[in-house]
Amino acid sequence: MAARPAASMDDCPTIAPDLTVRCWFNADRPITLAALRGRVVVLVAFQVLCPLSVALGVPLARRIHEAFEPNDVAVIGLHATFEHHDAVTKTVVEAFIREYRLKFPIAIDAPGEAGPIPLTMERYRMRGTPSLMLIDRYGVIRKHAFGSMDDLRVGAEIGALVGECAAAAAVRNSVA
Amino acid sequence: MAARPAASMDDCPTIAPDLTVRCWFNADRPITLAALRGRVVVLVAFQVLCPLSVALGVPLARRIHEAFEPNDVAVIGLHATFEHHDAVTKTVVEAFIREYRLKFPIAIDAPGEAGPIPLTMERYRMRGTPSLMLIDRYGVIRKHAFGSMDDLRVGAEIGALVGECAAAAAVRNSVA
Amino acid sequence: MAARPAASMDDCPTIAPDLTVRCWFNADRPITLAALRGRVVVLVAFQVLCPLSVALGVPLARRIHEAFEPNDVAVIGLHATFEHHDAVTKTVVEAFIREYRLKFPIAIDAPGEAGPIPLTMERYRMRGTPSLMLIDRYGVIRKHAFGSMDDLRVGAEIGALVGECAAAAAVRNSVA
Amino acid sequence: MAARPAASMDDCPTIAPDLTVRCWFNADRPITLAALRGRVVVLVAFQVLCPLSVALGVPLARRIHEAFEPNDVAVIGLHATFEHHDAVTKTVVEAFIREYRLKFPIAIDAPGEAGPIPLTMERYRMRGTPSLMLIDRYGVIRKHAFGSMDDLRVGAEIGALVGECAAAAAVRNSVA
Repeated sequence: MAARPAASMDDCPTIAPDLTVRCWFNADRPITLAALRGRVVVLVAFQVLCPLSVALGVPLARRIHEAFEPNDVAVIGLHATFEHHDAVTKTVVEAFIREYRLKFPIAIDAPGEAGPIPLTMERYRMRGTPSLMLIDRYGVIRKHAFGSMDDLRVGAEIGALVGECAAAAAVRNSVA
Repeated sequence: MAARPAASMDDCPTIAPDLTVRCWFNADRPITLAALRGRVVVLVAFQVLCPLSVALGVPLARRIHEAFEPNDVAVIGLHATFEHHDAVTKTVVEAFIREYRLKFPIAIDAPGEAGPIPLTMERYRMRGTPSLMLIDRYGVIRKHAFGSMDDLRVGAEIGALVGECAAAAAVRNSVA
Repeated sequence: MAARPAASMDDCPTIAPDLTVRCWFNADRPITLAALRGRVVVLVAFQVLCPLSVALGVPLARRIHEAFEPNDVAVIGLHATFEHHDAVTKTVVEAFIREYRLKFPIAIDAPGEAGPIPLTMERYRMRGTPSLMLIDRYGVIRKHAFGSMDDLRVGAEIGALVGECAAAAAVRNSVA
Repeated sequence: MAARPAASMDDCPTIAPDLTVRCWFNADRPITLAALRGRVVVLVAFQVLCPLSVALGVPLARRIHEAFEPNDVAVIGLHATFEHHDAVTKTVVEAFIREYRLKFPIAIDAPGEAGPIPLTMERYRMRGTPSLMLIDRYGVIRKHAFGSMDDLRVGAEIGALVGECAAAAAVRNSVA
């Protein structure tokens, strides 16, 4: 687990900010949250040289990707490089993705304008890696977690957000 | 994992049948599903001499009990004794519950009228132990699983059922 | 993990005392330590209603039994019933052994003459369950552990004792 | 687990070849096997972008380093870079060692003279990463393993080699 210094979630945004990134892997073209509206988005921030990211964050992202229907839940990886900038080149991230056989879209965060914290990480006020954000189908951030996470609780929160969609859709259809 | 012979879920019931049991632990008085209407019920069937029940089923029940609000989710254990009837006395089950420090209500299933399969297990057409049933707040069985289970998926299904309640309640309130 | 009150290893014996037991499973006839002289003996005490025995002690005994040559290492289970005497009948222990598919010899300790601690457990001054004793080929107790144990360290200690035999035998042969 | 093509252990050396490496971490000066004579050497080859190295090989090396007396057992890590040469710079390996808080000496293998297989890896006829070699106190390779490994068995083999030393020393002393 890698914590950035002095990060606070006090002014954590409600509406999920755009993803501003250097490049994408496992994606034909850049992915925008706007294009994912209507689906639950699971955004997992990690770093390849962060032990807890590798041991817990990335495997959790993979399990979520395998457990849910892609029409309901989109998993997005974000390599939020805020440490070891010299070491972790694009080539390293690409090799990591291939070796770990990750199939979901993954972006490398764009460099920060001042200091080591990259752009999207800063906008989301992430406290470090691994971080997990759940974004509902309207683009609202509903969960913002840092560090180790519990499958049962994360599953329940995703399931509830997926269910919201269904419930809301059912109501909409029944009153139309 | 202990499988009963020749069980089939073909005619698995939709409305959760009543629990007919010998006795209760961790409960002031007998628990009825009717009294739990309005909450999601997680019914976990196990046997103390079934290795997969002890290694997976009981710990999962405990984690669910700890993860969810009791007002939303009621966890019920059912000792479905269909093997080793001579060995597994009420004293054994009681000692097991104390040693494993289980805090949720647990019943011992009532003996079957013909053969080794106990009454509630038969009614639910359970295939063996461990089994997990999810019952929604209207008393409808929504999931019926046997054997090893995945925290993420089970969490998602419970979360969706809990969310249904909230969604339905919100609609009810908004139209009242 | 189940600890007996006020047990101390201060006067822990050096020469492994005889096993005085009620009955044996997975053995054609009673096993004596004398008959095992020349082999390293791993004695694992457990109770079927002790969670740490079931989660750690019994699986460790099974792994040791599978990892070592029976001519070098003999694994012996001892059900040291010092709690729940009413619940844990011989039938319960027998069903447990069958369900967990344990293949090494297992004895039920003989009842104590005064109080709940059984005879062999008392002689070995065991502090509770699970306990693990390593006895070298001369019948000397070389390790006496209680509670959770580490595969690497236990493996190293057994390996060293097995090696002692080989080293001593090689020396004996070379000077004969 | 990363396997090199067409490697065979048929002509695996008996006497441990020298370590020819690019650089050392966690060491004041280059380490030679000759200087470790008299101790059991555990040589663990890994790559930072090899999932099984990170999940199993490196943690096993760390556990061995913590479990044994340094006077008895020397743990040496070897980053055997035979894949992703462009990605895995010295900076990456150094950051990995710091992030995973590895305290035992680790070398980066020297580049091969022809092809991707580095020098020491080639000399030892390693089949890939993770690999584990046990070298006795006379410098003889006693175990050569590739892939996932079992703590109990690895512990037993190290324990036996450590015991050999003690046995041989005792004999030497007694006849001196």
